[in-house]
Formats: sequence, C-alpha cells, structure tokens
Amino acid sequence: MNAKSKTPAVAVAGATGAVGAELLHCLEKRRFPLSSLKLLASPRSAGKTLKFRGEDLPVEVLDENSFKGIDVVLFSAGSDTAKKYAPHAVKAGAVVVDNSSAFRMHADVPLVIPEINAGEIAKHKGIIGNPNCSAIVSITPLWPIHRKNRIKRLIISTYQAASGAGAAAMDELFESTRAAVENRPFTPRVLPHPYAFNLFSHNTAIDPRTGYNGEESKVMAETKKIFGDPDIRVSATCVRVPVLRAHSVSLTFECEKPITPDEVRRILSDAPGVKVVDDQVRNYFPMPKDASGQDDILVGRIRHDLSDPSGHSISWFAAGDQLLKGAALNAVQIAELL
Amino acid sequence: MNAKSKTPAVAVAGATGAVGAELLHCLEKRRFPLSSLKLLASPRSAGKTLKFRGEDLPVEVLDENSFKGIDVVLFSAGSDTAKKYAPHAVKAGAVVVDNSSAFRMHADVPLVIPEINAGEIAKHKGIIGNPNCSAIVSITPLWPIHRKNRIKRLIISTYQAASGAGAAAMDELFESTRAAVENRPFTPRVLPHPYAFNLFSHNTAIDPRTGYNGEESKVMAETKKIFGDPDIRVSATCVRVPVLRAHSVSLTFECEKPITPDEVRRILSDAPGVKVVDDQVRNYFPMPKDASGQDDILVGRIRHDLSDPSGHSISWFAAGDQLLKGAALNAVQIAELL
Repeated sequence: MNAKSKTPAVAVAGATGAVGAELLHCLEKRRFPLSSLKLLASPRSAGKTLKFRGEDLPVEVLDENSFKGIDVVLFSAGSDTAKKYAPHAVKAGAVVVDNSSAFRMHADVPLVIPEINAGEIAKHKGIIGNPNCSAIVSITPLWPIHRKNRIKRLIISTYQAASGAGAAAMDELFESTRAAVENRPFTPRVLPHPYAFNLFSHNTAIDPRTGYNGEESKVMAETKKIFGDPDIRVSATCVRVPVLRAHSVSLTFECEKPITPDEVRRILSDAPGVKVVDDQVRNYFPMPKDASGQDDILVGRIRHDLSDPSGHSISWFAAGDQLLKGAALNAVQIAELL
Repeated sequence: MNAKSKTPAVAVAGATGAVGAELLHCLEKRRFPLSSLKLLASPRSAGKTLKFRGEDLPVEVLDENSFKGIDVVLFSAGSDTAKKYAPHAVKAGAVVVDNSSAFRMHADVPLVIPEINAGEIAKHKGIIGNPNCSAIVSITPLWPIHRKNRIKRLIISTYQAASGAGAAAMDELFESTRAAVENRPFTPRVLPHPYAFNLFSHNTAIDPRTGYNGEESKVMAETKKIFGDPDIRVSATCVRVPVLRAHSVSLTFECEKPITPDEVRRILSDAPGVKVVDDQVRNYFPMPKDASGQDDILVGRIRHDLSDPSGHSISWFAAGDQLLKGAALNAVQIAELL
C-alpha cells in the first residue's frame, strides 16, 4: 500500500465475473475501508456499470495503464490475464491479490489462507496468491488439527460446483438442466461434457507423468506450501458435480499421534472460519445448499477411519461456498490484513 | 429349482419398482429361459399390467400364497417385504434372489457377484443375496486385482444416484429440479433434503458406535463377505448426488505388493463386467451419463496414489448403472447360474 494513503484506492480486475460480483459484495458487507473503487474488465464488458454501496460504478477496460494511483488490486481475471497485467500493477506501486494459479507456486509469492498463515502476507513482493478453491475448502478446517497433531497423509475426493469454472459454467449447468427437464437437446459450450444430471472428472489437463489433473496437482502442491510442510503426503481426486456454487469434499487424513472424533470436534468448535455441522441423530451434515452464501466451511461426518486400525486416521465431509471462502472472501480477508 | 422342470417358472416380487422394470428388461434382453413369469407387487399396484416379450402380464398382489409352482423368485421389494415373504417362497420350493439387505449377512445366505464368487451360489439354502449397489460398483473391478495382488486397504467415496432410493426418488430429483429451474418452491416427500443442485450424506441411520451410516456399513461388511477376506480394511463415505441412475465411486486401494497403473489397466482389460475408459489425452473418463444403460462398470483415472510413496496404492474413478449391474442385471446373472 502506498505510504501516503491511509484508506487505500482499490481496483477489482475481472469485476464482471462470478468471483468479481462476490468481491464487490464482500467489500460492501465487510465495510472494507477504501478511498475509491475502480472496476476493470475485458473490452467486452466496457461500458457496463455495477452497483457498489448504492452507486453505479462504470466498468473500465483493463490495460497496462489501469493501475495509476491504485494501492490494492483484487485480480479475478484468469491466469493469462493475471500474468499479463499483474506485473504492471506491481510496477505502479499496487499490491496484487491474485485469485488465479498464475503466481501461486512462485517462491516469492505468499500463498495465504488468513486462518492458516496470515503471517506470510508481510513477506510479499507485490503479489499475494489466493489459493485454489478446493484447497481452501479442504485445508482451512484441517489446519487447527495439523497444529496439534501433525497430519502425515491426506486423501481428498471433491464434489465441485459449476462456479469454479465461472459464471458461464453456472449458466450452462442451469440452462442444460432446464433443457433436460423440458426434454430439449442442449449442446455444451463452456464445459466439455453434458452437465445436467451428470458429473465428470475435473476438466483440467492430466499430467502424463503422474496421472493427476491440473486441479488435483494444485490442491496437492498448495496444501504443502500453505501448511509450510513439504512432507505432508496428499492425494486428490477432483470431480465436477451438478451443483451451482458450493464445493464439497470427502477427506481421510492420518495424524502422527492417535486422535479421536471427539478431539476433532473440540478442536474445530473454536476454529475460525469453520462450523461443525455433525448431527448424527437427525442425519444432518454439510450440504452445498447450506454452505452457499455462508462464510464458514461446514464440517461433519467426523469419525474414525475404520480402514486404519491404529486410531490415527479420521474421515469427514465438508462443504464451503466456492465463490466466498473459496475465492472472493479469502481475497478480501487478505486485503484487510495488508 | 424344482427337479421336475427344466425351464423354471419365475416370479418377480416388486415388479412395478425401478429395479423391477429393469429385471423385466434384463430377462427379456438376455432371453432368460422361463416357462412362465408371474409379476407380484403390493396391493396398490394390483390390476396394473406390464409388458413382457410383447405380452401384457397382470400384476398380482404379493402374499404368502404367491409362490406355488414357482422355481425362482427375483425379490426387489425392500427389506421388510423380503423378510416377510421370502421364507414363504422358500417353503414353497422356490429359490429367492433377494435385492434387499434383509438376508445378505446371514451365514447361510451366499452373497454373490457372479464375476467374483459364482461358486457360492451352489451353497444356498433357498435364499441368495444380491449385494448393495455401491458395493457392486466398487468391488466388481477390484476383484481381478485382489486375486493377483491382495488388497489390504480400501477407501471409497461414492457419488450415488437417485435410483438407489427407488423410482419415487428419481421422480423427486427430476420434479424438484424442474421446480428449481422454473423458480417454483418444492417440498421433498421421498428424501429428507432438497435434491435439486444439491447433494447430501446418504440418508441411512448413523451407527453411533462407529459414525458410519447404514449404506457405508453395508459396503464395508459386504466387501469382506464377497471377497471371502475378513481382513481387508475398508472405509466408505456414501453421498447422494443429483444424478438419476448411475453410481460413481472414487477409490483408493493399497495392495500387499507394489503395483503400477499399467498393470491395473492390463488386468482390467480382460476382466468380465468391466470396461476401461481412461483417455488421459482427451480427458475422457467414466461418467454417469455413459454408464447409464450399460452392463459394464466403467473404470478410469487409474494412477498411483501419490500419498503412498511405497508404490503399493492405486486410485481410480468408476461408474456403473445402479439399476443394471448394481441391482437387476446382477440378480438375473445369479438366476442364470442357478
């Protein structure tokens, strides 16, 4: 942030996307202190206006000269756009919080979930990475466990919402489903497979060396970086399900020492950003419909993993809003700490 | 089967349900040799007719006297109905293949997936269990691996279709989704939670001793019984997703000896009832939409589990038609072997 300004001048790059809309909501709802807000997007959104704190703000075209006088840029414009424009923002003196994967694994880019490693923020050299949404939903609730009883191994299967692929994918899920219930044909445009009443392995390229796809590799690498623990062994299977905006995850993790479900519930009961929803009697557990629009990540189905008789392993099921804690909220939390 | 008849007299109990309809299709498609077919259902379906081999067959009320002269009864009428009427069928001299969980874990009831343990069929005392659908989809493709390189540990996360809860649940998914895209309210009647664009932990009761629900406990116990291996360590997390009729599973398993993805593909390439769909270049893997209406279980995303550096563990993603191999087809396969 420029030393001269107390309340920063903020820009949102990618303001018209699904995450962009939530960034504006989060800034508004959290009364983020800002002296001005500049909305940036690609040329096809230029001329639009977006409401912020009761005002209609114009959407301007994102280019190399967009960042003069800006202190903080919240980037949610995809990896290629971030690679192209974030360096210009840094050169103009702004701090970039980038939601894409462009810089996340760079050694001099802190990758931050504030509940886990807020202290990393101070080390930034102009860019701070906002982690992958599946990583955020998976590991935010794991951190308080890891601090008390190191997690050695983590196996994740995701149930990911359309929102992770943007507003157009959410529209495609909705419209293709409408076509299905009306018995009309529908040709997918955004996603590679029919989505209505279907699910599919995450549509990022498979690394032929490992067999893992791009999304899975991000979850695995980012977990190690955010936990600051290169030795934690992680495997992820990432699957898109026909849900609009909250990711769910089925997790099994193995700790260094024995651990019980009651201990886990106790640790999570006062963990920030986490809410235990684990009503075994009413059979009420985390669901995307309840996680949608919520800041907290919901965790339930907490039990000993019976495939590990040593008592070191726990399984749980969690759900978190992909657009909020999985993206916009986490970015705004980082900006608040700057 | 009665010794006197060569081609058996067959009855289907629960003929008007989702699995019942598929039982008739399977008998027809596989040209099952039968001298007569009797359709049985609850009183509320009496008077209906169902098409079989071009004929309209009447649906009769299932009662204690339904089984005179019947050689084979395919039961798909739920656990309580099976408990009540299957013993009468056995007393009348028929062999029962029961799709419910009523008798599956009884010591003198063979629990059979023909690709795995067809030899057990001969040991029956009148009742043969048709396994849980999630168990069938999970373990049919695992068996040829297990025979060559014993599986010690198995961790399953399911993505289960509405059909597992019957035709009414499929209707509820469809109608609640129609209501959602038309922005109309919908009150769930069959399932405990809103299902449109949502998912939830399987709605069977949680065992307070273990924290696992009924569906998960079945998958875990039935795997041991069908494999004839009480020492295999299994954990399942069962989740209902908004898909109509094919179950998917994300699996991680650990073998006694090292194993490679190529070995797995080679073993599965000539495994009965299994089809490898694992195109890493085109990013094409098993999906419910492709598994629906297929006899085979589709297996893909075959890779080393990188959370186990020993090279003993494999992860894969599979999908199988819940109504076919998960229920009706498997039952008809058993009847064919009788």
